[in-house]
Amino acid sequence: MRYELYYWPEIQGRGEFIRLALEEAGADYVDVARTKGGMSKMMRLMEEGARPPFAPPFLRAGKLVVAQTAMILFYLGGRHGLAPKDEAGRLWVHQCQLTVVDFLVEIHDTHHPIGSGLYYEDQKPEARHRAEDFRESRLPKFLGYFEDVLEHNSRGGCVGARLCYADLSLFQVVEGLGYAFAKAMARTKSRYPLLHALRDRVAARPRIKAYLASERRIPFNEQGIFRHYPELDG
Amino acid sequence: MRYELYYWPEIQGRGEFIRLALEEAGADYVDVARTKGGMSKMMRLMEEGARPPFAPPFLRAGKLVVAQTAMILFYLGGRHGLAPKDEAGRLWVHQCQLTVVDFLVEIHDTHHPIGSGLYYEDQKPEARHRAEDFRESRLPKFLGYFEDVLEHNSRGGCVGARLCYADLSLFQVVEGLGYAFAKAMARTKSRYPLLHALRDRVAARPRIKAYLASERRIPFNEQGIFRHYPELDG
Repeated sequence: MRYELYYWPEIQGRGEFIRLALEEAGADYVDVARTKGGMSKMMRLMEEGARPPFAPPFLRAGKLVVAQTAMILFYLGGRHGLAPKDEAGRLWVHQCQLTVVDFLVEIHDTHHPIGSGLYYEDQKPEARHRAEDFRESRLPKFLGYFEDVLEHNSRGGCVGARLCYADLSLFQVVEGLGYAFAKAMARTKSRYPLLHALRDRVAARPRIKAYLASERRIPFNEQGIFRHYPELDG
Repeated sequence: MRYELYYWPEIQGRGEFIRLALEEAGADYVDVARTKGGMSKMMRLMEEGARPPFAPPFLRAGKLVVAQTAMILFYLGGRHGLAPKDEAGRLWVHQCQLTVVDFLVEIHDTHHPIGSGLYYEDQKPEARHRAEDFRESRLPKFLGYFEDVLEHNSRGGCVGARLCYADLSLFQVVEGLGYAFAKAMARTKSRYPLLHALRDRVAARPRIKAYLASERRIPFNEQGIFRHYPELDG
């Protein structure tokens, strides 16, 4: 079965967390909105049926359409060996992923503290203020939490040596923060050795390495979650 | 088995979504932080073990500790008949709940657009600006989405006539918004008849009715997610 991924075609955004899992799994998938006519297909699907997605990303797997980043990964993880098989392990990895998703909202809101539908340029003073609080308070809280998780789990990934989808997501978070908050991340690198080591290990996995070098990987840009605005990097 | 719920003792907050499910299920549970010595027990548990919660609420069920509001409900829903049994149905209710959780972040951030650790009084102008965008853009987007979901599902709850935990959460959202954004909600009531009808049906269920009248139900206040600040209600 070929999966159909639906996500905005010009950004990594939340869709990237799904792309990384599909790539690592070697799954057969099409990134629909990046194909001809794909955007209108995506918009149509959002209006259809009794169980519509609230927003992209969503995934079509046969007759099933699943939305919400963390839930799509929960679904894929069980099917492609990217999560433990026991209930406690499956729930734990999902819990890690939900915490990643919470973190993403806060990362996004550093450049959009007033309204996601408004321009960055119309909320710059507020963004500076929020980004300062983020760098000083929220960034160390989330990174410190995940560093502890890795420490507790044999200094490997969220469940130890065996790769899970939340590890792929942590790669993307560290990578994205290194782009958006380059100075803040460089300054604090020594505090989070296990997160940076996990980032390096994921980047070196053959399928991920090939993906990152391909045209399928959209570069970071100032339309996504992780944006490099020097005035927010402090 | 008696469940142990861990959450801040003086607010409804995210814990309330779990309390409502436990109450409707008639489950045996203790709201630990509201008992003597419970707060320090909660703080200790957050520092323990290889799979610590990032934040309350979390639930102890025997040896298992699960965190993240939506995941706790996913776990409880399957055990207490508050979710469909088929995979597609279970995922769909979880998807609805994850969208509720996204909505909650935006509701919270109307009074805390700059930093969750800062005082409301220190971010009042930004809160006015964000609340205005929320009332005009995000509130109708989320409520309109859920109204459509109910419309598509036989005008009942998220999965039709059979109550699920996401319906209990929608009750709490409508109730909380009616407290926080009393004017905005009164003005738009006729646009969301199915959501308001669902709120009324849930409130009339015997166990929920008894719970709401009990001392276990903490009143809304200005420490939680739903806060009534007249200057934000427009």
